[in-house]
Amino acid sequence: MKQITLVMHCPDQKGIIAGVTNFIHNSKGNILYIDQYVDRENKTFFMRVEVALGESNFYSLEKIQQDFKQNVGRHFDLNCSFYDSEKPPKMAVFVSKYDHCLYDILSQQLSGELSVEIPFILSNHQTLEHIANRFNIPFYHIPITQKTKVNAEQMQLKLLQKHEVDFIVLARYMQIISPQLIEHYPNKIINIHHSFLPAFPGAKPYHSAFDRGVKIIGATSHYITEELDAGPIIEQDISRVTHLHQIQDFLKIGRDLERVVLVRALKMHTDRKVMVYNNKTIVFV
Amino acid sequence: MKQITLVMHCPDQKGIIAGVTNFIHNSKGNILYIDQYVDRENKTFFMRVEVALGESNFYSLEKIQQDFKQNVGRHFDLNCSFYDSEKPPKMAVFVSKYDHCLYDILSQQLSGELSVEIPFILSNHQTLEHIANRFNIPFYHIPITQKTKVNAEQMQLKLLQKHEVDFIVLARYMQIISPQLIEHYPNKIINIHHSFLPAFPGAKPYHSAFDRGVKIIGATSHYITEELDAGPIIEQDISRVTHLHQIQDFLKIGRDLERVVLVRALKMHTDRKVMVYNNKTIVFV
Amino acid sequence: MKQITLVMHCPDQKGIIAGVTNFIHNSKGNILYIDQYVDRENKTFFMRVEVALGESNFYSLEKIQQDFKQNVGRHFDLNCSFYDSEKPPKMAVFVSKYDHCLYDILSQQLSGELSVEIPFILSNHQTLEHIANRFNIPFYHIPITQKTKVNAEQMQLKLLQKHEVDFIVLARYMQIISPQLIEHYPNKIINIHHSFLPAFPGAKPYHSAFDRGVKIIGATSHYITEELDAGPIIEQDISRVTHLHQIQDFLKIGRDLERVVLVRALKMHTDRKVMVYNNKTIVFV
Amino acid sequence: MKQITLVMHCPDQKGIIAGVTNFIHNSKGNILYIDQYVDRENKTFFMRVEVALGESNFYSLEKIQQDFKQNVGRHFDLNCSFYDSEKPPKMAVFVSKYDHCLYDILSQQLSGELSVEIPFILSNHQTLEHIANRFNIPFYHIPITQKTKVNAEQMQLKLLQKHEVDFIVLARYMQIISPQLIEHYPNKIINIHHSFLPAFPGAKPYHSAFDRGVKIIGATSHYITEELDAGPIIEQDISRVTHLHQIQDFLKIGRDLERVVLVRALKMHTDRKVMVYNNKTIVFV
Repeated sequence: MKQITLVMHCPDQKGIIAGVTNFIHNSKGNILYIDQYVDRENKTFFMRVEVALGESNFYSLEKIQQDFKQNVGRHFDLNCSFYDSEKPPKMAVFVSKYDHCLYDILSQQLSGELSVEIPFILSNHQTLEHIANRFNIPFYHIPITQKTKVNAEQMQLKLLQKHEVDFIVLARYMQIISPQLIEHYPNKIINIHHSFLPAFPGAKPYHSAFDRGVKIIGATSHYITEELDAGPIIEQDISRVTHLHQIQDFLKIGRDLERVVLVRALKMHTDRKVMVYNNKTIVFV
Repeated sequence: MKQITLVMHCPDQKGIIAGVTNFIHNSKGNILYIDQYVDRENKTFFMRVEVALGESNFYSLEKIQQDFKQNVGRHFDLNCSFYDSEKPPKMAVFVSKYDHCLYDILSQQLSGELSVEIPFILSNHQTLEHIANRFNIPFYHIPITQKTKVNAEQMQLKLLQKHEVDFIVLARYMQIISPQLIEHYPNKIINIHHSFLPAFPGAKPYHSAFDRGVKIIGATSHYITEELDAGPIIEQDISRVTHLHQIQDFLKIGRDLERVVLVRALKMHTDRKVMVYNNKTIVFV
Repeated sequence: MKQITLVMHCPDQKGIIAGVTNFIHNSKGNILYIDQYVDRENKTFFMRVEVALGESNFYSLEKIQQDFKQNVGRHFDLNCSFYDSEKPPKMAVFVSKYDHCLYDILSQQLSGELSVEIPFILSNHQTLEHIANRFNIPFYHIPITQKTKVNAEQMQLKLLQKHEVDFIVLARYMQIISPQLIEHYPNKIINIHHSFLPAFPGAKPYHSAFDRGVKIIGATSHYITEELDAGPIIEQDISRVTHLHQIQDFLKIGRDLERVVLVRALKMHTDRKVMVYNNKTIVFV
Repeated sequence: MKQITLVMHCPDQKGIIAGVTNFIHNSKGNILYIDQYVDRENKTFFMRVEVALGESNFYSLEKIQQDFKQNVGRHFDLNCSFYDSEKPPKMAVFVSKYDHCLYDILSQQLSGELSVEIPFILSNHQTLEHIANRFNIPFYHIPITQKTKVNAEQMQLKLLQKHEVDFIVLARYMQIISPQLIEHYPNKIINIHHSFLPAFPGAKPYHSAFDRGVKIIGATSHYITEELDAGPIIEQDISRVTHLHQIQDFLKIGRDLERVVLVRALKMHTDRKVMVYNNKTIVFV
């Protein structure tokens, strides 16, 4: 038995749920779970459906997808994505020199908590190559200078395309991604920013937080857009700090926040529970 | 038996604790509680001591204070404040049209959780006068326009001085306080800002937070300084929000955060547990 | 224009949403907001609908209610409650000697955050009568001893019925309610327990928490059932504590938790956002 | 330059801090950090001091320790432990079949966040042997049945002693440790319990939490004592849940809590920041 996930949105209108569920029923599908949300202000309907398909092999994912589009899809002006729930998405990991998020991603993947395939780890430094080796994952070292940036990104793009990567995680990758690369992966590049956005965007946020004397620090995982640290937020979390915490403590507490928030966001994304709309996210439970 | 609280700071050096505790002992005082903190980077020592004085009435608060200064005070270059623990400080309440923080302050004072005397409530609108009446607290209505601002603040200052106000709370007072007034009450004007500072300073922070699509909103209580929303932070707290929350929900959740965070900051302040240093606060437990 | 809220549940089946929304449409109602939840394990459907009724006065709340039952109600075996959104429910407040929750309830009601009518405050002590007076609310003093308990509860019941009370809040009312009284108000008596249930049920939970050396304390608001502190939980919240906090601090932090958690639960209840099922609650956002 | 950490407690009395700091000064030590706490109710003094020793090699850790005991130690009846800050403690890892905590421990150790040496991983199952292999750590499989329990623990003890293990972490080790083994490692066996203790001790806490309908779930790390799940709590944390979360979600959210809370507790322990007293912990920041 095959399981698929449908994620869709369309202008809000009468009869969508009935239309979709009837279609699934007629396709011998069995609905396991439905989440839906209506943005009444923008009159938009969002739905995520988990379906178990029957044994009959003539109903391939492609066939259903095609049928769906010609029927309910066209009728409701539905924008729908179909995912094979048993086929984990391919995630490229971009890192720089920090290892805590990388370790967390790799061990969560190994323990089965994070359902992804990792075709490669890419870095502008060789610092973390030993980790890739330990976990038997190909490692590509593509140095970046201001001069070589365009070239380097073209090499990155080739790698991404060759490996048919579905999405990218920037696990404390300290480089800014160019709009050209972002265009190829819209809402498919997930970053972890080490502050409670929109507070302290840019560099050295913990130092800024320490200097400002905040009582709470945070971390934010978001999709990359052209504007720096301004993309749709997927997940945030915080920790309390006091005057007893020195800047070293901020960094330490922060690293723990970053790894947890990033992996949480990756899980939501790989479970197809995140939908992007108007530079915000809808995150189903 | 009289109880006093000493709050002090000085350059860090050997023997301060011994010096102070010996002085208290020799003055027939009994130490009930000591909190201390050393900022090693800035080589500064902070201490808060609760003392029970003996029966002998010739040791008035003034006498001890004078003795202290001439002895340990001078020796360690100590900057020390003495407070009579049984004499609640006088707090003026400035409001505009929102009532939730005002209600919380008044009821927390009545139930004895917040130990202050409230000589008056002041507002640029008459909207909340009925609340002052209900709680039998004098209410002053001083309207403010751009033209009358200087005059209005002079009237405010006269009131504050006449009532010997110790500190001011801006309980959603929507006006900017001028540097001239702040100068009279340095680190003695407590504001509640309805966002997680430094995110969303200025006006309409919930609307900005909603538009930005944050997953967590907050409130911040801080001392007012010349720079808007940039003074030393006393307390912050947050609540999670999701895509299900509309702007009305943000405002509602926010009001609950504001009242709780503000009253918590007021309690810390009135318990003499907050010390300001380098535009940050040290907050003893 | 009149606004009503429908809260319903029934066995999960096809076509419920369409059935209900069509009925509302045909009754000239305009749907403002729909929340729904399907408990797939127990195959039960829950829905909450806010409806704006048209001007036509022949559609009274009673008429619609009757029509609904004979149509969709009967068809889907729907259990539905209808509420007039403009008519705040009548809430009796039971207290003992603690005032912090009472103050919070009264000031939140005054500021319009908590939409209830309070016909009376009832206590087994006279301690808080002065607060009732200050807020101009009738106060009934019904002392309770083990001997007089049955009588006292009969007097309480008479008062509740005379005032047509819709639900009761136990705002730190330190008495156990008998099953006889609970029977009259099933899932309509809201309590605040001063611990993170099911940890520390019964008396003196903060002392137990302090002795146990927990790092987090909590408060729990729940509906009263026959079994002590075991009814459906509406809301919980927590605060961190450390070894620096003494038992007095636990009590103080706890009081702040209690008042906030209780009022939050009351708001959810009065907004008709809480549904009870299998000794648990479904709480719509 | 060598760095050492002193952790001490004694009856509270005058002059302790001066006594200790003078001793360190006379031993050519340089104090880097002092944390202290006085339990006034129990009249007990606790202190943790980080010291940098000078170059002079005739001041070995042993020599200082001996000197200390004969001087300030004897004078103040001080119970003091000395730790070489550069020598990470040896931690044995006991696991059963769950891997999430194990992965987190190993990757946090590799990334340098958790400063321990891991001489071996021990399990009553072979399930996780592959992880030990991947991380090049010896793995011992000692099956346990009710009959073989005494024998098995003797084998465990031999291993622990042979490897000179300093403390043990039970990373979801599903066996109860006998008092005989605990005696050898008092306050040196750290467990993670998958609930917010004292709520839901024993087996299947998430299922109990789900059935009880709580709105917040938690995890607790504590030292093992004879009484099950009743030892001194080091760290706790919580996550909010709603009616939308199924039991599978509880388990998933819980696993994330467990790994984070356990590693946080291990860090505090290895940084020598935890002191046990009266079945509670003092945890320095």
